[in-house]
Amino acid sequence: MLSNIRTTRIEWCDCDPAGIIFYPRYFEIFDTCTTALIERALGMNKIEYLRAYDFAGHPVVETRARFRQPTRFGDDVSIETKLVECGRSSFKLEHRLSKAGALAVEGYETRVWVKRGGGDAQRIQSQEIPAAVLTRFEASKI
Amino acid sequence: MLSNIRTTRIEWCDCDPAGIIFYPRYFEIFDTCTTALIERALGMNKIEYLRAYDFAGHPVVETRARFRQPTRFGDDVSIETKLVECGRSSFKLEHRLSKAGALAVEGYETRVWVKRGGGDAQRIQSQEIPAAVLTRFEASKI
Amino acid sequence: MLSNIRTTRIEWCDCDPAGIIFYPRYFEIFDTCTTALIERALGMNKIEYLRAYDFAGHPVVETRARFRQPTRFGDDVSIETKLVECGRSSFKLEHRLSKAGALAVEGYETRVWVKRGGGDAQRIQSQEIPAAVLTRFEASKI
Amino acid sequence: MLSNIRTTRIEWCDCDPAGIIFYPRYFEIFDTCTTALIERALGMNKIEYLRAYDFAGHPVVETRARFRQPTRFGDDVSIETKLVECGRSSFKLEHRLSKAGALAVEGYETRVWVKRGGGDAQRIQSQEIPAAVLTRFEASKI
Repeated sequence: MLSNIRTTRIEWCDCDPAGIIFYPRYFEIFDTCTTALIERALGMNKIEYLRAYDFAGHPVVETRARFRQPTRFGDDVSIETKLVECGRSSFKLEHRLSKAGALAVEGYETRVWVKRGGGDAQRIQSQEIPAAVLTRFEASKI
Repeated sequence: MLSNIRTTRIEWCDCDPAGIIFYPRYFEIFDTCTTALIERALGMNKIEYLRAYDFAGHPVVETRARFRQPTRFGDDVSIETKLVECGRSSFKLEHRLSKAGALAVEGYETRVWVKRGGGDAQRIQSQEIPAAVLTRFEASKI
Repeated sequence: MLSNIRTTRIEWCDCDPAGIIFYPRYFEIFDTCTTALIERALGMNKIEYLRAYDFAGHPVVETRARFRQPTRFGDDVSIETKLVECGRSSFKLEHRLSKAGALAVEGYETRVWVKRGGGDAQRIQSQEIPAAVLTRFEASKI
Repeated sequence: MLSNIRTTRIEWCDCDPAGIIFYPRYFEIFDTCTTALIERALGMNKIEYLRAYDFAGHPVVETRARFRQPTRFGDDVSIETKLVECGRSSFKLEHRLSKAGALAVEGYETRVWVKRGGGDAQRIQSQEIPAAVLTRFEASKI
């Protein structure tokens, strides 16, 4: 299925007084990787795809991660992201972050496709993933 | 076992263009809650307890969370944090974040007690939790 | 003029590998202080006042800060925020962050009142601050 | 004098509910740019140069910025960073962040070279910039 590899660098601003990455930063990295994956599948950037499919986003409803070895500022890391399951209104992804070829973090997430709800502009609710998106998610062997 | 309740407010800076909290911020909140719990148990702040027990911190090695309903800037939330298990060099915590009395997020984490390693000041490795700390963790019914 | 005092705690997640606060976090703190000041003046929270006055926010167009002494995780700090000038579509604020009574950081910012622009939902442009808001800004001696 | 150009992308996680970048993120970007500049000048990464010159870092003591136009998630930006002045224990930098060739943000910062102080491992104090570093700062026409 759909997959993508990104590289990034762990920066000073990502690290805590122990000198290692502050672990919530990994979820920021994973969020960016998921966006990059969907952008590639749909052939447009996030501002464009939110507008094209008229929805509010794809928030995470469940996530977990295993931190196998710490990373530090200056570390160049590589993240492989895969779409591993796709339902009617939700989808699952896996992220594998490696440093110098060794697995450092595994992340798993379930996301839902949401729109703004009825009368209340503040409310969001899940909706079916558009067929055109599903087709692109399944067709992609990138 | 050891537990604690904190309240905080979701701020504009915690939220993303969908107008809801950007989920990695929950892990920042949970990290602060864990620190608060340990500070209460040990009767000193984090700078002091890192020094008193001469260790490098208690990084997370595994975590998961379920996001049941979104929170928004201006929301006052309450987080109940519990120490649910304590081993020789690791311990587990649960966080339950509520908004207006309704559960919004559940978080689970496993942490290890680490020290700086041998010759390399950059390396950290797990070590046994000091007996004095374990006693405090178990004695606390706060 | 309008002023406000908030207290907060510098947390582990705010600090960098030097063990002191990572300075961009001060701007996050200042942003929250500005919101708190406006919420008090207008008597509603930010979600409500954005809706009540139908505008997109009050982004910073210019800022500067002096960091006189570092703060560390565990430090309780106090921030005094003042509205020091108010024009037709912009206003200026000062923040003074103190630790144990000693001034640690001074911050200055100029903000503009903006609305969504014409045809493009993505575009924002400055507009006049509503008279009702100006009255509240000037009346407040809180 | 020493200068550098970096490119980065504004991400979803950098933006606030107004859909534009939350301005403190610019200071995170500038901090990373300053590190990149020094790394190039000294020919080593930050972990290495902190160790090689045995110091605690180069914290910002004063900064200011002008935000001329907002950036949004998906925007590719370019940042030109220049060392504009170098004293005995402090140095000044300028950052110019552009989007599609147009200047979006100007940033200015003054930093000091600091070491850990006397008996207290928590205390930091300014010290003279090593001659070897000054030579590299001045020699670099990169």
